[in-house]
Amino acid sequence: MAENDFIDWLKRQARQDDRLVVPIGDDLAAMKWIADDLLLVGVDQVLDGVHFDSAVHSPRAIGRKAMNRNLSDCAAMACQPAAAVCTIALHQGSGDAYARELLLGMQEAGAAFNCPIIGGDTGSWPGKLAVTVTILGRSDGVPPITRGGAKAGDHLYVSGPLGGSIHGRHMTFEPRVKLARYLAKNFKIHALMDLSDGLGVDLRRLCDASGVGVHLLMDHVPVHGDVEKTGDAYSRTVHAMADGEDYELLIASPDELPEPCIKIGWLQKQLGLEMVVGEAEVQMNWPELGGWQHSL
Amino acid sequence: MAENDFIDWLKRQARQDDRLVVPIGDDLAAMKWIADDLLLVGVDQVLDGVHFDSAVHSPRAIGRKAMNRNLSDCAAMACQPAAAVCTIALHQGSGDAYARELLLGMQEAGAAFNCPIIGGDTGSWPGKLAVTVTILGRSDGVPPITRGGAKAGDHLYVSGPLGGSIHGRHMTFEPRVKLARYLAKNFKIHALMDLSDGLGVDLRRLCDASGVGVHLLMDHVPVHGDVEKTGDAYSRTVHAMADGEDYELLIASPDELPEPCIKIGWLQKQLGLEMVVGEAEVQMNWPELGGWQHSL
Repeated sequence: MAENDFIDWLKRQARQDDRLVVPIGDDLAAMKWIADDLLLVGVDQVLDGVHFDSAVHSPRAIGRKAMNRNLSDCAAMACQPAAAVCTIALHQGSGDAYARELLLGMQEAGAAFNCPIIGGDTGSWPGKLAVTVTILGRSDGVPPITRGGAKAGDHLYVSGPLGGSIHGRHMTFEPRVKLARYLAKNFKIHALMDLSDGLGVDLRRLCDASGVGVHLLMDHVPVHGDVEKTGDAYSRTVHAMADGEDYELLIASPDELPEPCIKIGWLQKQLGLEMVVGEAEVQMNWPELGGWQHSL
Repeated sequence: MAENDFIDWLKRQARQDDRLVVPIGDDLAAMKWIADDLLLVGVDQVLDGVHFDSAVHSPRAIGRKAMNRNLSDCAAMACQPAAAVCTIALHQGSGDAYARELLLGMQEAGAAFNCPIIGGDTGSWPGKLAVTVTILGRSDGVPPITRGGAKAGDHLYVSGPLGGSIHGRHMTFEPRVKLARYLAKNFKIHALMDLSDGLGVDLRRLCDASGVGVHLLMDHVPVHGDVEKTGDAYSRTVHAMADGEDYELLIASPDELPEPCIKIGWLQKQLGLEMVVGEAEVQMNWPELGGWQHSL
């Protein structure tokens, strides 16, 4: 299929949307923006062999993941997804049906949050499949919640069990947009982020951005049933904290938060990581905790 | 270099910007949006071996091209660039200096139009270098000009000589943002786009979107000195129209436009392509004209 035909197909897929002044198919899309709404924007790439395996995962599932990672970033800021644009670098010869499935995966993930795809760039190359999604969000009555607002004394929560995502959940997770917006509207939320690289790494990012340290109750960290059932509880927890791709929320709040939020400790003035394992208190350096850091 | 360090470097590169409520480094960036401004958005990818050759072109030049292609899309809509986000999929082992050069290339291209990079995602993989830039533009007093507004009777213009871009200009062109905004503010511009895939393909897109045909004066199509000086004038013009990556503007206007705009024909009710070559009139089917269509 030639590029023109693919763009025509994309145009037919796009629903009517009153916000869109210029729809997909021109040099840029143009949309109305609601006065007073902050514009949030971010981008994420998923690469064959790194974030998915095209030999195993369907293009529909890959498309869904690409979009859902970005929707999870909206959850992480407590903003409302507004629209997305995407790029697809197809492996040569993948064909039009494959590209359409990818797009449909992105579209159905976005549609669950009223977040249409309004632009894109598709091409092919001898390289492996690379997909990016850029997400636009709007504050819609909720000021963005950063990683940097946590205060000493705040409770620390996660929104669900961690670890073992690689066994399947990393392709099928549901972005926590609705929970984040609910919490932001009904409680004092000082800091918020989504757990993409593992609690070990991401918790440090929240602490560093906020200028606080953490007292972590290791026995309270919820370990997902997907984590392999070898070793003792402590080693399984450490494993779960290093796994990454949980896409659960990490939340700092002075309030008692409702389910599904699970309290795992508190933030404190004393910088660094203080862990309680059973009845023992352990001071640790962050790097000992592991987690996923991409090297360049 | 680890990902955290690279993000820290990025943060230090970012200039203070009053529009940014949440700067680079959080899950999403957040910016104020000026009421009444339409938001324009689009994305473009550049791939090693397709849009550049990493064995030949410097990372700085690749970064500049990635950004400039998107700025050219802003020119194509006559909008003001506002901000950009980017992804970089580095070939494993490229290293931090290479990534920084790429970013610096993007930054300096954006800075020429007050268009900061406010977010991104950098990773490495065994694959080749893939770079994307998503651009946000704002209407800023100029309603977006689409491809679809050309009327029978409009003059057809290009903003500069075409062809031979592959010999170097495709890496070094200057996006026509200022010219597009000047024209839009001072003349009736019915349709506008940038020439990325060659006049042969892009002119058809404008005609199809506008529901008009074209009367093209082949002798008036400006052929760039970079086009190889073999064959007669006609064949050189056809070659120039098929080359792609000119990043000049294609403009439909009822007005007489000033330099550097060059009149190359007019639009008419009769659909299709009518060419005048010397004193002969030739009816052609679009596909005979060639041009660059990506196959998937």
